[in-house]
Amino acid sequence: MTRGGVKALFFDVFGTCVDWRTSIALEGEIVGSRLALAGVDWTRFADLWRSHYQPQLETVSLGLRPWTPLDTLHREALDWVLAEMGLDAMPQPERAELTLAWHRLCAWPDVVDGLTMLKRRFIIAPNSNGNIALLVNLAKYAGLPWDVILGAETAQAYKPSPEAYVANVRLLGLEPSEVMMVAAHNADLAAAAFNGLRTAFVARPLEHGANQTSDLRPTHSWDVVAGDFLELADELCL
Amino acid sequence: MTRGGVKALFFDVFGTCVDWRTSIALEGEIVGSRLALAGVDWTRFADLWRSHYQPQLETVSLGLRPWTPLDTLHREALDWVLAEMGLDAMPQPERAELTLAWHRLCAWPDVVDGLTMLKRRFIIAPNSNGNIALLVNLAKYAGLPWDVILGAETAQAYKPSPEAYVANVRLLGLEPSEVMMVAAHNADLAAAAFNGLRTAFVARPLEHGANQTSDLRPTHSWDVVAGDFLELADELCL
Repeated sequence: MTRGGVKALFFDVFGTCVDWRTSIALEGEIVGSRLALAGVDWTRFADLWRSHYQPQLETVSLGLRPWTPLDTLHREALDWVLAEMGLDAMPQPERAELTLAWHRLCAWPDVVDGLTMLKRRFIIAPNSNGNIALLVNLAKYAGLPWDVILGAETAQAYKPSPEAYVANVRLLGLEPSEVMMVAAHNADLAAAAFNGLRTAFVARPLEHGANQTSDLRPTHSWDVVAGDFLELADELCL
Repeated sequence: MTRGGVKALFFDVFGTCVDWRTSIALEGEIVGSRLALAGVDWTRFADLWRSHYQPQLETVSLGLRPWTPLDTLHREALDWVLAEMGLDAMPQPERAELTLAWHRLCAWPDVVDGLTMLKRRFIIAPNSNGNIALLVNLAKYAGLPWDVILGAETAQAYKPSPEAYVANVRLLGLEPSEVMMVAAHNADLAAAAFNGLRTAFVARPLEHGANQTSDLRPTHSWDVVAGDFLELADELCL
């Protein structure tokens, strides 16, 4: 049985639970229209902003700087992106507002119902690189019914560092084999499996838009592969 | 307005949300009856066990030992209590089971409905000396609909240390004045107020049984005084 012994499910959030790209582009659109900025490609803005994410996390994981929460990294990268796009005139209040746009992302349509079903059987928690404040506000905004907020800040380590998985397993008083990581990203699942967690892949083929080429399919034989969170609940709650 | 600017409510858990004394006595009763132990006063057992709690926390707060989660402290004190009561013969599996009884405590009757109402307006979180695993399992057991699990383990400090309040406020990205501590214990509220949090007192006159003498009334003019969580919701959600 795929769920034998599993007591908790850890979820990747950006991309797996929420559609960050459409949400951030829309928030850019709203700010841009208020500031009467014409001809800005706000989807490109979202993609550029997100492109700084992994390199920034690595500066922390490699010890090049002390622990820094994602809100701070988002604010830093926003300045770079606005400069890259010739939008240096963006005022400070709008920069603060856009940074907090990462607290207001829309869930994929199957997520709230799927999580609600899964919560009846399992402890459900994000295991995200987002900081606690971001994840709490996002859960309130998108209606994500988490039992507990876990992630990089509770582990003091960014995925895919081992501590980002095992420290959060320990905080629940569980063994790695009692926890299943759910993600739309094969690399996240590979790191989870390497650290002894079970794995479930849920493809999100539109995370990066219609021309997405990455993570369309599972690259390994993960414990579970499901089309969305409703299928995952069907599979795990049987 | 009492709730002006308040964005999150922190709740004390043992005594304020759950009736630990009745629950622990009942779990003792169950184990005792299975082991055919006669004439044991299981309410005294619960009281004795709890009496070790504050002195144990102080050993951590004073730096006499490194960070130790409450599950470990409960297990340690259980051995002392069983020895005090002449129950040294209690086998290890029952000791482990009783330690986890602190994960299965019953909520006072107003708590789940009150929290559900308060959750519509505020971020609601425990701020308890319980460790994360204990608080998650307790929330599942008692139906406490927390938005996020905070407490001594996320702050790495036991109440009433300042860090036990301000570190958890910081994790939500808030200012102390944006958070209200809700407790049935005046000392908890005094420490919260000293650190800039708002305060709400909810008396639990049966926490220590019918002869309780402590915390029957507010000792200071806390921001809110309510008879139970339903009254608190009426007051704060107006």
